[in-house]
Amino acid sequence: MIEIMNDGATPMHLPYKLAGREFKPERTVIKVRGIEIGGDKTVIIAGPCAVESRDQLLQTARSVKKAGAVLLRGGAYKPRTSPYSFHGMEEEALEILAQAREVTGMPFVTEVMDTKNVDLVAQYADILQIGARNMQNFFLLREAAATGKPILLKRGPAATIEEWILAAEHIMAAGNHQVIFCERGIRTFETGTRYTLDLSAVPMLKQLSHLPVIVDPSHGTGKWPLVTPMSKAAIACGADGLMIEVHPCPSKALSDGQQSLTEENFQKLVEEVAAIAQAVKRPLSRVDEHE
Amino acid sequence: MIEIMNDGATPMHLPYKLAGREFKPERTVIKVRGIEIGGDKTVIIAGPCAVESRDQLLQTARSVKKAGAVLLRGGAYKPRTSPYSFHGMEEEALEILAQAREVTGMPFVTEVMDTKNVDLVAQYADILQIGARNMQNFFLLREAAATGKPILLKRGPAATIEEWILAAEHIMAAGNHQVIFCERGIRTFETGTRYTLDLSAVPMLKQLSHLPVIVDPSHGTGKWPLVTPMSKAAIACGADGLMIEVHPCPSKALSDGQQSLTEENFQKLVEEVAAIAQAVKRPLSRVDEHE
Amino acid sequence: MIEIMNDGATPMHLPYKLAGREFKPERTVIKVRGIEIGGDKTVIIAGPCAVESRDQLLQTARSVKKAGAVLLRGGAYKPRTSPYSFHGMEEEALEILAQAREVTGMPFVTEVMDTKNVDLVAQYADILQIGARNMQNFFLLREAAATGKPILLKRGPAATIEEWILAAEHIMAAGNHQVIFCERGIRTFETGTRYTLDLSAVPMLKQLSHLPVIVDPSHGTGKWPLVTPMSKAAIACGADGLMIEVHPCPSKALSDGQQSLTEENFQKLVEEVAAIAQAVKRPLSRVDEHE
Amino acid sequence: MIEIMNDGATPMHLPYKLAGREFKPERTVIKVRGIEIGGDKTVIIAGPCAVESRDQLLQTARSVKKAGAVLLRGGAYKPRTSPYSFHGMEEEALEILAQAREVTGMPFVTEVMDTKNVDLVAQYADILQIGARNMQNFFLLREAAATGKPILLKRGPAATIEEWILAAEHIMAAGNHQVIFCERGIRTFETGTRYTLDLSAVPMLKQLSHLPVIVDPSHGTGKWPLVTPMSKAAIACGADGLMIEVHPCPSKALSDGQQSLTEENFQKLVEEVAAIAQAVKRPLSRVDEHE
Repeated sequence: MIEIMNDGATPMHLPYKLAGREFKPERTVIKVRGIEIGGDKTVIIAGPCAVESRDQLLQTARSVKKAGAVLLRGGAYKPRTSPYSFHGMEEEALEILAQAREVTGMPFVTEVMDTKNVDLVAQYADILQIGARNMQNFFLLREAAATGKPILLKRGPAATIEEWILAAEHIMAAGNHQVIFCERGIRTFETGTRYTLDLSAVPMLKQLSHLPVIVDPSHGTGKWPLVTPMSKAAIACGADGLMIEVHPCPSKALSDGQQSLTEENFQKLVEEVAAIAQAVKRPLSRVDEHE
Repeated sequence: MIEIMNDGATPMHLPYKLAGREFKPERTVIKVRGIEIGGDKTVIIAGPCAVESRDQLLQTARSVKKAGAVLLRGGAYKPRTSPYSFHGMEEEALEILAQAREVTGMPFVTEVMDTKNVDLVAQYADILQIGARNMQNFFLLREAAATGKPILLKRGPAATIEEWILAAEHIMAAGNHQVIFCERGIRTFETGTRYTLDLSAVPMLKQLSHLPVIVDPSHGTGKWPLVTPMSKAAIACGADGLMIEVHPCPSKALSDGQQSLTEENFQKLVEEVAAIAQAVKRPLSRVDEHE
Repeated sequence: MIEIMNDGATPMHLPYKLAGREFKPERTVIKVRGIEIGGDKTVIIAGPCAVESRDQLLQTARSVKKAGAVLLRGGAYKPRTSPYSFHGMEEEALEILAQAREVTGMPFVTEVMDTKNVDLVAQYADILQIGARNMQNFFLLREAAATGKPILLKRGPAATIEEWILAAEHIMAAGNHQVIFCERGIRTFETGTRYTLDLSAVPMLKQLSHLPVIVDPSHGTGKWPLVTPMSKAAIACGADGLMIEVHPCPSKALSDGQQSLTEENFQKLVEEVAAIAQAVKRPLSRVDEHE
Repeated sequence: MIEIMNDGATPMHLPYKLAGREFKPERTVIKVRGIEIGGDKTVIIAGPCAVESRDQLLQTARSVKKAGAVLLRGGAYKPRTSPYSFHGMEEEALEILAQAREVTGMPFVTEVMDTKNVDLVAQYADILQIGARNMQNFFLLREAAATGKPILLKRGPAATIEEWILAAEHIMAAGNHQVIFCERGIRTFETGTRYTLDLSAVPMLKQLSHLPVIVDPSHGTGKWPLVTPMSKAAIACGADGLMIEVHPCPSKALSDGQQSLTEENFQKLVEEVAAIAQAVKRPLSRVDEHE
């Protein structure tokens, strides 16, 4: 337990320090090529689960930008439960993502899975994602921190909120204070959804920490018809943004097709989320504002 | 498994029938003394966890009505983990609730815990609540159904969505089709909140069933600072209403003080929820509309 | 929290009292027609999930007695997730169970589901079972307690060990100190088994409470090939007995066929469990010892 | 899904192949310096959670060997929830473990946490442990597999049995068929124990896979008084061995003191486990047999 002195007041004893509100009362805003995460506007990150081809990615990137996304997502390295599943296009995918950034102006986030290719991924990506399975891969957290890039830290499916904050503390203790929490569902007994999206974590984190919090309802529910309603709920309870899986043809996706939106449905999602964002006085961030 | 024929189409095989959208595609609207649950407007139910005294209840009833609640809640019989905790004022509480209804015009919902006093509770209450611990108390479900009163069916903390729909099916198979689902959190490993509020259940139920769905973020989180954000999330993802615990002085409450809002905070909740309700085009139901 | 004075020593603060080791250091032994539960010997309770017919029950009773069971189980009232499933033969089943007791000399345990028929069930049964779904049905606990019969208290699938002890405390506070805990699995994310049998609860309860603890690996795993290994594990870690589902023809059982043993497999179970019981110096209780 | 042809019979469709009984009906026995894991005898692995000093490790190694352990455990790299906790002595610890092996003749297992030091750890260790947090760190699985050393694969706290077998399949698909499963508890709502030890996984794995299965009741319960009873249960239900934390002075341990046994209690554990091992006809493996 760490003793924290806040403005000369009574010392607090919390298991974390740098990530806590006691240490830094004002919220942290992370800037990526002119886009603010954790600021006054709501950000939408979108793209396919995995980069499958140049055409697929470029088409999706243009489409999600037009609909209202300001950041692009796409997996180059894919952790897969089975050794016989598609594992990602690796460096070629990174190069395609960089091209999409050039074409659309959208910065991108992609997952880094191993200390051995952190540097390679960091050469391309604007934000490094630590996947749910790696939330407590402490070597990876430190190595990713060392790149100086913002880190999108997904919650482990069996991690408590406190353990999650402590994983952020690992990154911050290694010198990198640009951490974005991403809620993506926890493992529970419910089998109707792939995971149980724990939206209470959003206001909890907002009270305990100064770091931004986004929500991934695609992985969090595993069912595309739930993605739009849960996106609206996430913004309503205070999330700073969303990360949404979109695929030109979900039924042909090499991974996570069941939870991916079509481009058309993504457009509807943005419209509905915009109304909620307006209602909570944090309107959507738009690309043209940054150009 | 039941074979369901929908419009002459291919038969569907689902474990339930009467509660399903296949059986009744249009939504069910339940009317209670002029208030519609599951209709075009969002309803807010509020009141103390338990009726503790005439003064406490009448004050709270007047206050929540003024703030925007249209239905009153209050426990007469309280299931308590410990045999040494306050168990409720029983029939006296029912009589006080009835008086509050007379004074404020608000109908009320209260929990029925045992088959032996279903008839007594039904003489007073407008809606019978089946508590989370009794979701699969099948004798109680049937006996409550037989009163003909609308049934507010809380989700068991270890119940899947399918088991919950099947509990509604028990009530409907006993001849009472007026069932309201109430999500109130499930048991998970997370200890930062009392339960994990499973909001994904709301759009899931809306797709699978025609019955109304409300959310109880007071029990679902167990922490009053989370109640307002999660209320907004609930309405954003499609809930038909909310059930909120309010107490004149939460720190002195005989039960659930930690999760109860003050009257002042409840007023703020209503204002913030109203903005979300507007954004999803289902404005708050107001008492004066029914008078 | 209750202040407990143990032999003049420092007061302990525990949420329960009567059920705790502090209150009564020596173990509680419950006697049922000459059979001791919680004593020096290991008891095996066996029988079908539900009484389906006189023939089925009498055959099973004779068979399990011959194999080594000393108590009979059989459901007269069956809580079923679906309203369209077999619900039990009710009073007729009680009468059949009583006949089986007369024929075989084995006392029997059966579930009581509602306060309205507690007295009826108590007229027949030697031990009243409170089912997992009713562990926190406090009216039922009190009413069952009042019969003076020993109560077999199943763990709720979402109940912590502390909540379970508190449910026993409800029974004891109502004046009946003859409570037997029965572990039957908890709800977790694992789908390979029906529930997750929590055997750690056995030594935990033995340390915290003086009451007997038995294990039901049939419900706890939901898969018959796991019943024998988990029975052995239960006795190895200190359980006082087992409750096992046996059916003359599991594939034709009206409920729980997947987890029921054939008579032949039950016989093998008894042999293998006997070796473990011997190794922990608590040999199997045998019927002939009581005749 | 993989199509598996077993003896010309009907093809089976399972998500895994190499790890399955269909592919290899006879059990896999892994030999480490003369000790067999998965063979006719029960093996006990013991040692401290973390190597803290040369003296601490050598004393513990001698003591656990004398009591009956045949393999040594000790952490050189420790994954810790907090960045401010003791993280292990790293390479110095590996060197100390090697010395202990020389002195006692006991081979050792230690955790490998990152692809960057797999080769270093493999130069010292006899068995590489993949920790629970890394069960789905697929780069690490492949890199560890490539060393050719046996891999002790701990279950992730939120991993289903099927996902766990698939993690083994990742190692086997990379060419290394020497995998040992180690059950160490899953995350559930129960807070009385640190994790819920899922012993049903033992007979499940034995039916589905040909690979050895051991149990770690120290992490699985998090409470030393439960370690001996759960060790007995593990062997009773078919585990091939145990991994036990022992510390000369648990209250001074730099990690996991609450779940570590004293040397004296470990000796009692071995005696009690020996009786169960005898009862299931798989007596303890003893060091002298291998010298």
